[in-house]
Amino acid sequence: MSRAYNFSAGPGTLPESVLVELQAALLEFSTCRAGIMEISHRSQPFEDVLQSAKARMRRVLGVPDDYAILFLQGGASLQFYQVPLNLALPTDATDYIDTGTWASKAYAEAKTVSDAKVIWSSKATTYDRVPAPMDVKPREAAAFVHYTTNNTIYGTQCAAPPATDKRLFADMSSDIASRPIDVARHDVIYAGAQKNLGPSGVTAVLLSPWALARVAEVKAARGGLPSMLDYTVAAANDSMYNTPNTFGIFALERVLAWVEGQGGLPAVAQRISGRAARLYAALDASDFWKPHAQPDSRSSMNVTFRLKNGDLEGAFIKEAHAAGLMELKGHRSVGGMRASLYNALPDEAVDALIAFMGEFERRNG
Amino acid sequence: MSRAYNFSAGPGTLPESVLVELQAALLEFSTCRAGIMEISHRSQPFEDVLQSAKARMRRVLGVPDDYAILFLQGGASLQFYQVPLNLALPTDATDYIDTGTWASKAYAEAKTVSDAKVIWSSKATTYDRVPAPMDVKPREAAAFVHYTTNNTIYGTQCAAPPATDKRLFADMSSDIASRPIDVARHDVIYAGAQKNLGPSGVTAVLLSPWALARVAEVKAARGGLPSMLDYTVAAANDSMYNTPNTFGIFALERVLAWVEGQGGLPAVAQRISGRAARLYAALDASDFWKPHAQPDSRSSMNVTFRLKNGDLEGAFIKEAHAAGLMELKGHRSVGGMRASLYNALPDEAVDALIAFMGEFERRNG
Repeated sequence: MSRAYNFSAGPGTLPESVLVELQAALLEFSTCRAGIMEISHRSQPFEDVLQSAKARMRRVLGVPDDYAILFLQGGASLQFYQVPLNLALPTDATDYIDTGTWASKAYAEAKTVSDAKVIWSSKATTYDRVPAPMDVKPREAAAFVHYTTNNTIYGTQCAAPPATDKRLFADMSSDIASRPIDVARHDVIYAGAQKNLGPSGVTAVLLSPWALARVAEVKAARGGLPSMLDYTVAAANDSMYNTPNTFGIFALERVLAWVEGQGGLPAVAQRISGRAARLYAALDASDFWKPHAQPDSRSSMNVTFRLKNGDLEGAFIKEAHAAGLMELKGHRSVGGMRASLYNALPDEAVDALIAFMGEFERRNG
Repeated sequence: MSRAYNFSAGPGTLPESVLVELQAALLEFSTCRAGIMEISHRSQPFEDVLQSAKARMRRVLGVPDDYAILFLQGGASLQFYQVPLNLALPTDATDYIDTGTWASKAYAEAKTVSDAKVIWSSKATTYDRVPAPMDVKPREAAAFVHYTTNNTIYGTQCAAPPATDKRLFADMSSDIASRPIDVARHDVIYAGAQKNLGPSGVTAVLLSPWALARVAEVKAARGGLPSMLDYTVAAANDSMYNTPNTFGIFALERVLAWVEGQGGLPAVAQRISGRAARLYAALDASDFWKPHAQPDSRSSMNVTFRLKNGDLEGAFIKEAHAAGLMELKGHRSVGGMRASLYNALPDEAVDALIAFMGEFERRNG
């Protein structure tokens, strides 16, 4: 067997060169005479890995010097709770944009610890769109506006942040490090690593100085916070209040090095948007295909589509699999097909998919 | 370079044969044509890994069929909070045995969500002992007694559970899978994986039917629980409410397979206790050495000791390192030396350490 083109929505494909580096480090890392998973998180070699991961993330994403960079556990799902627990007073108005399953789960957790409200939703149209920046109208009292930059399941993506003067919090799990972002415009950014940053089990969290300062006030109002959920504890201990996911952080550091080697986010974004445009053009070329997302809401990370003749979808997925185009089945809540085009997917994979689609249409159209 | 004898207290040494298996799986796992970190947690190949990990843990530890086995994130430190949050009413008396740093942190978190009390402590003697089973006297109203089976930093270990008819909750992070345990005598057992089970970033949690049933009552009293911290959510979703640490669970599954290959826990325990006894005998052979733990509280996992002449400790650690005996420095809160003898450490490592100690004493005694 050999490695196929892997369109998995996450955990997703990783750069082969990084995987080869990880292989070597499993048995012997640096001059440790032990593998990367077998050394203390307090050892200098691991401390160097952690600092390098932070420095690379700061360079790659353009994170301001005074923002904290944390590597936590529990995925974005734990952040759905941890974010409002740390940053909203129980009485705070917290405004959520509902663009899909994960956005909706973030809102559900926020509701338990703050005065949360959904201020925009595309649920009625099966989450086929995101709001235009000007369409986001937060409450006057909103402490922050939370949005999800990319919606993995539905294949939609925000081209720009909401146009509001409120503080912005963003779940960027499925498109972080795929394009330049204005980090300074956000007070909180978080992302599970398992799409563009590395393996599952690491969550990157970026916090502005305002956010870190706010925790003290919220903590006082709540009568304390659990140590493991307190951002100021994590920040004061540089993500090592307890043993972090050391292998996951190492893998993330290597993936970020690979991104830098690709020329950083401007170069990545050009490549990513170009190939997504080619795939959408193929989907738009005939009514054999039914792309799910509205044109102005299309994601360059997850391309969701159905066939006009739904009966052919099973055959499409099966034959694509046989042709080495893996994991094209859509999420169980939507059906159809989904091609996830994360950074590490080679361009040739997208070209091969487009070629296969053309051939499939000729045979079945 | 080559792999040395690694006495790290954790993350600790892993079986070399497992590391070689992990290396191969990074690029191509099973028939996936993708690496283990690159496949969906909802895919059949990963589902098989998860079920195998649970089945092996059930066999290896003798977990009753009606106990839930969960693989969570956040380490034992998150369990310090999650355990009482799920299983104690705010008014419940929860009794804690304070045998060291981690036990004390568990108590601190419990205090914020229940009527927690330290009912036994060895703090006054620098945690050089654990209670004899009969010395544990819980409060009449105690909902449970929490204890730490092995204290990594101080090198102490409970030979048996507390002799009480109260429900027992145990943090077994640093000695799980090193000896047979009576799982059925406990309602909660949890352990960070990074000593005997695998890499950091996975936490194994075992819950009795009583514990799982109790969550509903506590949840009602607390007005709900955050989804990611709710044991019943994790159990209902078989540890996959969101994306788990897939690579970590795979590594844990491989480590448990290795334990089974060693003959299971009776065989492991015999090997572990034998070599620990040899090391303690060497420490007891002359007053050149000063073992920290009281004889009846000694750990077979972490052997802590000082030199009568403390000035020589730096030289001992440095020369041992040069001789390929790595990570013998004690925890910063205790100083001196610590040799961690986790399952994956070869017996030859302990023999080499004993030989080096003899030689060091001859040169410096």
